[in-house]
Amino acid sequence: MPPDQIATAVARALMAEEGTAPAWGLELEAAGEGYARVAMTVRADMLNGYQTIHGGMVFALADSAFAYACNSRNQATVAQQASIAFLSPAREGGRLVAEAREQSLVGRSGVYVITVRTEDGRDIASFQGLSRTVGGAVIDQDGGRVVHAHRKD
Amino acid sequence: MPPDQIATAVARALMAEEGTAPAWGLELEAAGEGYARVAMTVRADMLNGYQTIHGGMVFALADSAFAYACNSRNQATVAQQASIAFLSPAREGGRLVAEAREQSLVGRSGVYVITVRTEDGRDIASFQGLSRTVGGAVIDQDGGRVVHAHRKD
Amino acid sequence: MPPDQIATAVARALMAEEGTAPAWGLELEAAGEGYARVAMTVRADMLNGYQTIHGGMVFALADSAFAYACNSRNQATVAQQASIAFLSPAREGGRLVAEAREQSLVGRSGVYVITVRTEDGRDIASFQGLSRTVGGAVIDQDGGRVVHAHRKD
Amino acid sequence: MPPDQIATAVARALMAEEGTAPAWGLELEAAGEGYARVAMTVRADMLNGYQTIHGGMVFALADSAFAYACNSRNQATVAQQASIAFLSPAREGGRLVAEAREQSLVGRSGVYVITVRTEDGRDIASFQGLSRTVGGAVIDQDGGRVVHAHRKD
Repeated sequence: MPPDQIATAVARALMAEEGTAPAWGLELEAAGEGYARVAMTVRADMLNGYQTIHGGMVFALADSAFAYACNSRNQATVAQQASIAFLSPAREGGRLVAEAREQSLVGRSGVYVITVRTEDGRDIASFQGLSRTVGGAVIDQDGGRVVHAHRKD
Repeated sequence: MPPDQIATAVARALMAEEGTAPAWGLELEAAGEGYARVAMTVRADMLNGYQTIHGGMVFALADSAFAYACNSRNQATVAQQASIAFLSPAREGGRLVAEAREQSLVGRSGVYVITVRTEDGRDIASFQGLSRTVGGAVIDQDGGRVVHAHRKD
Repeated sequence: MPPDQIATAVARALMAEEGTAPAWGLELEAAGEGYARVAMTVRADMLNGYQTIHGGMVFALADSAFAYACNSRNQATVAQQASIAFLSPAREGGRLVAEAREQSLVGRSGVYVITVRTEDGRDIASFQGLSRTVGGAVIDQDGGRVVHAHRKD
Repeated sequence: MPPDQIATAVARALMAEEGTAPAWGLELEAAGEGYARVAMTVRADMLNGYQTIHGGMVFALADSAFAYACNSRNQATVAQQASIAFLSPAREGGRLVAEAREQSLVGRSGVYVITVRTEDGRDIASFQGLSRTVGGAVIDQDGGRVVHAHRKD
């Protein structure tokens, strides 16, 4: 399989297995080697007490794009650490797009930069994630199932 | 009102106004000046493709405790930036407790350290948040309503 | 003055005023709007107990590129927060290059991504910085002097 | 040896081997299991273009305390990632104290919180570091020499 197809198969398999992608209404827009773009529409149950999107949901969207990007080579990889800067609020009904790009990959460590923007290009947040490849494939040859048992360390 | 009572009133008002606290089943265990402790039980719709809690939900829990702690003096405060280190996974049914403590408060900037642990004390994540006080009260004199209109910058 | 010339004048003025640029042997390779590239050669007095470059010096190099990039429009700007991931060690005599790019600029807040690499392109560290514009010019019309008195908050 | 003595021996051995401790005038005030307190006096060659301490030197001081704290059990440990929030500036002649405390230790991963303050207790910066134990002792039985060859990954 070419790299983009592997990345897409991994992302789709993770989305099918996880509880969060359907719970949050995540849409995979694109996937490639070290790359993923994911969209989410802000709902009432994602708002904080100031009626703007909760920082946890902005992070959750970015972290999902991060996960698909860092697992894109079908090598099971986990998040070790992440930093996020919140730049502007988003409101109910807005559609947010998180775009993850691989910045560095050295041994088992990877660094990814994820931007979260509104559809018209306003910056909502900037996220940097540090991943660690833990070994093993994410999906099997048929491409349909997550076969890796998550382990830290 | 004594500081702990103000902090509790603010946290309860924010939880009542926000969509996320009921959506995630957050429970306020304690609140005080620069302090908050919040619990959440891991559900199936919070799991990632490896069947452990999604990093976004760990962050969301910690970020909620951060928000209650940094707004605890009834001065409207927003998150500017946060960093999180993921230490071990948690599984469905586990009850997680996030404890937020104020580490520094200089002018309008505050730094908070939040730990996320299982009930039996296993470390799940460590979170550091940077807040900025934007001015205005969070709740009115009656203590029941969020009166501040969120603004960044 | 065109943007690149302003950026270069600001960076050179800051380097002339600061104690650190000469102390660390920083070389400005390029500057532009929201951009800076700075080089430094690893010396014996920059090594940690494992005889590799001290993380503080990797950060210091990246932070310097960050400072020149976020002040590049001649509007006095300070660092609020930064995160760094260490990817591989560097040894005495190696020449490191830090390249800072502006990722977002929303109101007074900016996010910059800085990579630190060896001359042959090995990734040493990845840095993300959050800046805040505090107002006032950095250099006067003649372009030669730092006129801003640094203030936080 | 009791834990505090091991921690002190490791810190002193690292300080003796590294180029940075003498270059920056670091003073070890205290060391213990997962703990270190280090002081540094701000010099002219540590100032930025605004005549306040360069963020890189604030980080360098905190990162040194972090290193002594995370190596305190005489198990060779490296920094993987760190985040710092800058809270207020410090000027030439000021004596800064960095205090590192272990917050979490799970498997090979550790999280440390380091505060940098002036002698009269003003907060300069707050730092969070993520370490990884790479195996092997830092110092030999005699306690005087760094025996570990630093390796990442």
